[in-house]
Amino acid sequence: MEVINDLLNYNGLKIVQNTNWFSFSIDSVLLANFVKVNNKQKIIDFCSGNAPIPLFLSTKISGKIIGVELQKEVYDLALKSIKINKLEDRIEILNEDVRKLADMYETDTFDLITCNPPYFKVKTDSNTNFNTIKSIARHELYLNLDDIFKCAKKLLKNNGRIAMVHRTDRLIDIITCMKENNIEPKRMQFVYPFKNSKSNLVLIEGAKNGQSGLILEKNIIVHSEDGSYTDYVKKVFNGGDINEN
Amino acid sequence: MEVINDLLNYNGLKIVQNTNWFSFSIDSVLLANFVKVNNKQKIIDFCSGNAPIPLFLSTKISGKIIGVELQKEVYDLALKSIKINKLEDRIEILNEDVRKLADMYETDTFDLITCNPPYFKVKTDSNTNFNTIKSIARHELYLNLDDIFKCAKKLLKNNGRIAMVHRTDRLIDIITCMKENNIEPKRMQFVYPFKNSKSNLVLIEGAKNGQSGLILEKNIIVHSEDGSYTDYVKKVFNGGDINEN
Repeated sequence: MEVINDLLNYNGLKIVQNTNWFSFSIDSVLLANFVKVNNKQKIIDFCSGNAPIPLFLSTKISGKIIGVELQKEVYDLALKSIKINKLEDRIEILNEDVRKLADMYETDTFDLITCNPPYFKVKTDSNTNFNTIKSIARHELYLNLDDIFKCAKKLLKNNGRIAMVHRTDRLIDIITCMKENNIEPKRMQFVYPFKNSKSNLVLIEGAKNGQSGLILEKNIIVHSEDGSYTDYVKKVFNGGDINEN
Repeated sequence: MEVINDLLNYNGLKIVQNTNWFSFSIDSVLLANFVKVNNKQKIIDFCSGNAPIPLFLSTKISGKIIGVELQKEVYDLALKSIKINKLEDRIEILNEDVRKLADMYETDTFDLITCNPPYFKVKTDSNTNFNTIKSIARHELYLNLDDIFKCAKKLLKNNGRIAMVHRTDRLIDIITCMKENNIEPKRMQFVYPFKNSKSNLVLIEGAKNGQSGLILEKNIIVHSEDGSYTDYVKKVFNGGDINEN
C-alpha cells in the first residue's frame, strides 16, 4: 500500500512509501546526520530508495542534491516525495544503475557521496527468489561494494568523501574495498540498538587519496532500556547535529 | 631505577620494572584480557617487554608461553620477573628480533600470537634521538606492522589467531596490513580513557585465512568521571574475564 508519512520532524517534510516493499529506515537518518555538509559541495546519493537522504540533506544545505535509484517503482516513490515537498529544483533523482555513473560524469566531479547500499551478500546456493523489489534493495544482486567504491574513486574529487551506512559485520569488507580503490577510511561511528547489545550498524567515511589516520566518533545507542528512542536519537530525528552527541 | 612491583592483583604476581625506561602499561593487561586462551594452544608473545602478557596469561592457562623481546636490557627485566615468580618452566623469553622468527620456527607452529608493538611511525624528518630503549619500544624503528603480520602469516596455524593492542588512529593501517597477509580481522574492541573521550586504544584479533565477518566487543571505559578505574577495569585487574563485561 502506498502511503504518505511524515519524514520524522525534519522541517515538516513528507515521504512517500510503499508499506509492502519500501519504507525508509533509521539507517538513512543516521547517515544523513553523520556526514558533514556545506553549501559548496557537489553531492550525490547512491541507492537513494525513496530519497530519504536527499530529503534530509535538503534541510541542512541550500544547494542541489542528486540521487540515484535503479528500481523504477522505488524511483517513482522518490519523485512523488520530492514533488510533495516542492523540492523539484533542489533534488534530482536519476533512474539509473550506479555502475553506469562512471560513464555519465567526468572524473573528479563530486565532493560528497552518500550511500545506504544493499547489505547482504548473495549466497549462490540459496533458493530464495531474489527477483523482488525488496530483495534488490537488500541484497548485492545488482550492486556490490566494489562497484560502489570503484565508481566513487572515479567520481570523487581529490580528498572528496564517501560516507556509507552498513552492517557492522561487513566492516572489514568495506575497509578493504575502500583501500583497494584508494579511498582512505577517515571517520567511523558504531550504532548499537541498545546499550548492552552488539553493534549492528556502522557509519564510515573515506577520503579519495586521503592520508592514514582514523577518527572514531562516539557510539550511537538507538533505544533506551524501555524500548523508546534515546535522547540523542530523538535529537537526530529533529534534525539535530552529530556535534551535539 | 629498577623496582619490583605487584603485577596488579594477578595471583600475587610480581613484575620487575625500570622506572627510567620501562614499565608495563594497561595496554598489556587489556590485551591479555581480550584474548581467548586454553591449555591446548601453542602461544607466543611478540614485543614482550618485561613480560607482562606472558605473566598474565600464565594465570589463565597451565601450558607454556614463549615471549620475544629484542632489547637486551628489557629482556633482562623479563628474566628477573619470571624468576621472581618461579615461572621458569612455564615462560620462556627469547632475546630475539621478531623478524628472525620466521627462520627459527616451522610454518603453522602457533595457535595464538599476542603483540603490544611499538605504536608510532618513524618520521624521517624528525630530529629526535631514537637510539634509546624507550624509543625502540615506542617507535617502529626495528619492527613495523608489516614485519609483524608477515611473521604471523608464517608462524600461525591455519585459522590461528593474532591479537594486538594499538592506537585507534592506526586501525586502518592494521586492518590493511592484516588483509595483505591473509589475516582476517575477526574481533575488535575499543578502549576509551573516559566515557566521553575519544577512543585511544583498540584491541584487534585476526585469523590466518579466516572468513569475513567481524564481531565488535563491548567498549572498555578505563576511568570513571572522578578519575578512578571503572568497575570493569578493576575486575580485569583482578583477573576477571572479558565475558563478564
